[in-house]
Amino acid sequence: MSYVPSLALVPPALAGEVRGIARLLSRAEAGTPECRPALDAIFRHAGRAHVVGITGVPGSGKSTLVARLAAAIRQSGRKVGIVAIDPSSPFSGGAILGDRIRMGELGGDPGVYVRSMATRGALGGLAHGTLEAVDVLDAGGYDVVIIETVGVGQDEVDVARAAHTTVVVSAPGLGDDIQAIKSGILEIADVHVVSKCDRPDADRTIADLKTMLAMGMTAAPAGVWRVCVVATSATRGEGVAELLAAIDRHWVALADSGEITARRTQINERRLLKAAEEILREQFARRRDGRVAQLVAQLNTRSLSPHGAAVRLLEEIRIGGEA
Amino acid sequence: MSYVPSLALVPPALAGEVRGIARLLSRAEAGTPECRPALDAIFRHAGRAHVVGITGVPGSGKSTLVARLAAAIRQSGRKVGIVAIDPSSPFSGGAILGDRIRMGELGGDPGVYVRSMATRGALGGLAHGTLEAVDVLDAGGYDVVIIETVGVGQDEVDVARAAHTTVVVSAPGLGDDIQAIKSGILEIADVHVVSKCDRPDADRTIADLKTMLAMGMTAAPAGVWRVCVVATSATRGEGVAELLAAIDRHWVALADSGEITARRTQINERRLLKAAEEILREQFARRRDGRVAQLVAQLNTRSLSPHGAAVRLLEEIRIGGEA
Repeated sequence: MSYVPSLALVPPALAGEVRGIARLLSRAEAGTPECRPALDAIFRHAGRAHVVGITGVPGSGKSTLVARLAAAIRQSGRKVGIVAIDPSSPFSGGAILGDRIRMGELGGDPGVYVRSMATRGALGGLAHGTLEAVDVLDAGGYDVVIIETVGVGQDEVDVARAAHTTVVVSAPGLGDDIQAIKSGILEIADVHVVSKCDRPDADRTIADLKTMLAMGMTAAPAGVWRVCVVATSATRGEGVAELLAAIDRHWVALADSGEITARRTQINERRLLKAAEEILREQFARRRDGRVAQLVAQLNTRSLSPHGAAVRLLEEIRIGGEA
Repeated sequence: MSYVPSLALVPPALAGEVRGIARLLSRAEAGTPECRPALDAIFRHAGRAHVVGITGVPGSGKSTLVARLAAAIRQSGRKVGIVAIDPSSPFSGGAILGDRIRMGELGGDPGVYVRSMATRGALGGLAHGTLEAVDVLDAGGYDVVIIETVGVGQDEVDVARAAHTTVVVSAPGLGDDIQAIKSGILEIADVHVVSKCDRPDADRTIADLKTMLAMGMTAAPAGVWRVCVVATSATRGEGVAELLAAIDRHWVALADSGEITARRTQINERRLLKAAEEILREQFARRRDGRVAQLVAQLNTRSLSPHGAAVRLLEEIRIGGEA
């Protein structure tokens, strides 16, 4: 297969052709400069999809739930795209969790597209190219785009900031350690799911979440949306319709209240900062053996401070000069 | 107490006076621009301490172990500083884990200084000012500075990159979920600790770690240092002397092999990038209601791409112009 310029993939991707979409997704993940104009064009055509972040610790049954939710979205006549993120070791570069989506039941349905992405490097929780991948699926005509993360902590917060609706999945019986780790991210939820609700200890998890909400521990703007708790059993197929209904209600509430504008502004402000940081890191990498090495040598001998060195470096970088 | 300019706190801090050190630490954490010249001066006087990162999931018994280790360091005649980082919710700003050090047994010893810091914001795993706090303790004459993190994932990786020696604490019986979360960070260890080794399942955890090491899953440079596994029981006081011996051996090995230079270069390269990113974020925040808002509005209407907007923003920022 000869190399097709990325820009040539934009029209087929916008027309919803799966091969064009797949190839653009690969290039978004690789992050080569060649695909930038294509991704810029895709961005300008995106903006229609409802982006839903679904997050939860390993063992929460999240992947099975995502598969069930995707099936429910299909039954409602909508197309659904899924971007699933695997955390990987910053050192080996290899995936450490095999928590990929089991989408067997949806196989062969052209209205579903699933993409697994590996996180890359230690900077930033979301995989490189995640937001661009969401754009590609959005512009390609998928009505709902789900971002699924299997990480803990920073990843979840990043999902909340990249999605219109954030779903946090908790499972009963994962233990206090897991709960402690998760507690930092519980309040980013627009919708809570307690999975595996057939388990005897599920009621306690539901009650705990409701107590937390009653105490006002939520980041959702008051008056616009009341954060809810949905109990599901993916194996028995229970609660999935209720979850989809809650997600859809949230989307309507964002639009009706006008809150969607604030949410978009928040998402795009963060994207702008991230894009600026990415350019900075590229410029840094480009000078690694040159000016950066000189400045680091001065830091090693403590003849310059990190801030002083950074000011000197930035003075030299005609940072916007090279796009 | 009237406000003392930060620069006036530098001489007492360098002389090891606890009040000067404490006040500089508070200012490093607050991150006000006023303290920058002082922290720059401190940086230039630091560089003597052995910086040890100690990391592990909640429930691993890490804080008790750090207290025991600090006592052992004191018994060897050295001063020890501890920077303990609490992850906090990016939304509430409040601490979510109460895993502060119980230092009762060391109370009143002027050769020990403990500082708890809250992580701030969602960007970056280490608390704002962590590395500056390490500098203050280093320049203030503490021979060993321990950075203790209670987070998982990104935090640990950041510790590995900021420390000369990284200790990863695993506890038996924390369950597969915890192990899965941790597996991404196990390979950053220079020294592994299996805490609570009095537990019956400790042998299996030790064997698992040794198997992992035998498979070559480590980031330590081959030939310079052989990653080891130390079993401890903080409650019974076992293994702490062995842990300190391993930490000291690692420090000697870094120096003898010349690897310390590579480690310092790696640490300082990262500090330079972080300092540059911090300046970028400051400049971004300063323009949030101005140029940033204009560009975000164009992103909201999709008339510009994030990368294109970032290029325009960076062209405007005379980024090195304001120190």
